[in-house]
Amino acid sequence: MVCRVTTTDKNHSAAKADAPFCVAVDWGTSSFRLWLLATDGTVLAERRSDEGLILAAREGFANILDQHLARLQVPDTVPVVMCGMVGARGGWLEAAYLPAPLVLEDLALHASPVAGQKRRIHILPGVCQHGEQGFDVMRGEETKLLGAGLRDGLVLMPGTHTKWAQVANGSLSGFSTFMTGELFAHLSHGAASVLRPALEGAGAVAPHSEAFAQAVVESLNAPEQLSNKLFGVRAGWLLEQRPAEDNMARLSGLLIGMEIAGALSIYQRPGTLCLIGAGPGAAAYRQALDVAGFKHITVLDADDCVQRGLMRAALRIHGVEGVGK
Amino acid sequence: MVCRVTTTDKNHSAAKADAPFCVAVDWGTSSFRLWLLATDGTVLAERRSDEGLILAAREGFANILDQHLARLQVPDTVPVVMCGMVGARGGWLEAAYLPAPLVLEDLALHASPVAGQKRRIHILPGVCQHGEQGFDVMRGEETKLLGAGLRDGLVLMPGTHTKWAQVANGSLSGFSTFMTGELFAHLSHGAASVLRPALEGAGAVAPHSEAFAQAVVESLNAPEQLSNKLFGVRAGWLLEQRPAEDNMARLSGLLIGMEIAGALSIYQRPGTLCLIGAGPGAAAYRQALDVAGFKHITVLDADDCVQRGLMRAALRIHGVEGVGK
Repeated sequence: MVCRVTTTDKNHSAAKADAPFCVAVDWGTSSFRLWLLATDGTVLAERRSDEGLILAAREGFANILDQHLARLQVPDTVPVVMCGMVGARGGWLEAAYLPAPLVLEDLALHASPVAGQKRRIHILPGVCQHGEQGFDVMRGEETKLLGAGLRDGLVLMPGTHTKWAQVANGSLSGFSTFMTGELFAHLSHGAASVLRPALEGAGAVAPHSEAFAQAVVESLNAPEQLSNKLFGVRAGWLLEQRPAEDNMARLSGLLIGMEIAGALSIYQRPGTLCLIGAGPGAAAYRQALDVAGFKHITVLDADDCVQRGLMRAALRIHGVEGVGK
Repeated sequence: MVCRVTTTDKNHSAAKADAPFCVAVDWGTSSFRLWLLATDGTVLAERRSDEGLILAAREGFANILDQHLARLQVPDTVPVVMCGMVGARGGWLEAAYLPAPLVLEDLALHASPVAGQKRRIHILPGVCQHGEQGFDVMRGEETKLLGAGLRDGLVLMPGTHTKWAQVANGSLSGFSTFMTGELFAHLSHGAASVLRPALEGAGAVAPHSEAFAQAVVESLNAPEQLSNKLFGVRAGWLLEQRPAEDNMARLSGLLIGMEIAGALSIYQRPGTLCLIGAGPGAAAYRQALDVAGFKHITVLDADDCVQRGLMRAALRIHGVEGVGK
């Protein structure tokens, strides 16, 4: 098994003082993240690896989890709460989708126990939607929303399949997935992409790039022209030797601009937008939102949110009395 | 060299009667088509293969052409006129782009002779555009337009990179490429496509499919929601077990619908639209155009157009007197 594992023992002295309360796991298509948490939510230890779903389906979910817990010497009495694609069809156990709208705090009430394990393991459900906007699903983001602790507001969670979610009075009232990141991946790395030569050698999209901002504006103004403007990236490279960095920024800006136009056609422009994310992806969205005239943006770290959401669910499932958030 | 070659000797008796006048070749990224033409434009013989550009760059353009001509026993005195990606950078010889607007009949005046060959060989130029609509390029479609013989009108040429072209008084006044077909290919066959499981087992898009028409309407009404609606194809499959045929039709309809919305934001809706194409791709566009309210559509065969365009160019280059169209 070839995988990258990082481990952190954040508060070694705290770890001696605080007994571990639960293990929180965010298990996605391509990554595994585990936090050992104390009753007050303190992170006692952390493990990360690229043991995503495909690898786990081959190696065995229980095996992978056990190895990580053994390394941390976590007693069998400490329960595990998980979220993400681990609960999808083809994951460890299918944890059925809950339909939106739903009260986020109630997620834990619908957690699926994994039978036949030496310790208590629960997988949180994903959320589905059958609204007039069409079908939609999420797995993992509902736990981030729970952890974000937002009562009301519009939330943006960038990713390969970016989610926009409306929270009203502590309920997830509706959401929309945009597969912008996947389109970006196909067009920038797909074997058959006609744009690839124009992007060769470009790094990540430069923050505050003029080409990016210009592309966002064009897509906001004429989102229906997307597949024409995309071809223009190739033509600009052929005719004017536009540099790869600009072409990459333009590709990203066109796609994100169209997404923002789409989201604004579904949701009311909020006074404050909550952005849950980190890294270059979230930075690109921040710039695009700025171009699109979003005035106030609150940024939360995605890992913090998922870890807090799993902790809240664990408290609800395992009912520790007198424990703080 | 593994390639499929088909050969046709359409008018064997005519071939004896009519001396061959020229060889017309449409040489694209993935296909090679050759017609041996008499002075009156009669097709004396035809060859088709999948010896596209990548294979030709390896095997040698002259080798491949010579093999086909040898099979047909074409005398060295008969000239060759070619169009398509053979004239691109990375092709046989870069035939520089002509800027639009341009008089289509003048294309032949800018043909690039291929030096050092035993017979006269010319490659027709592609066309480029630096308009307010952004950069664009075509190679091969300009020859189809010449062959279509249209004085005025809007022309649609479906393909991996579909072209919309405006012809005014015999000039190509402007054009727009939409990479709709490429997006369809990435999403339906790309290794990383999240839609693939939802499409598994589906054949070509069924003509007159209700799912297709519905998707076209949705994209015409809300093109900015494309990347959300695309994800909805996956969600509909996960939640409702929507059949693969419907999902494939929906994918196609969403993409073509957005393209038509885009084209209508650039060009005036025409009284009659000229559609140059054939096969399932063109049929899908016809249905989508019908849904979008296009009243009159003239359909021309793409092969006929390119062959006639090459013939017209050959007549202009080699100036045969008293020869009919």
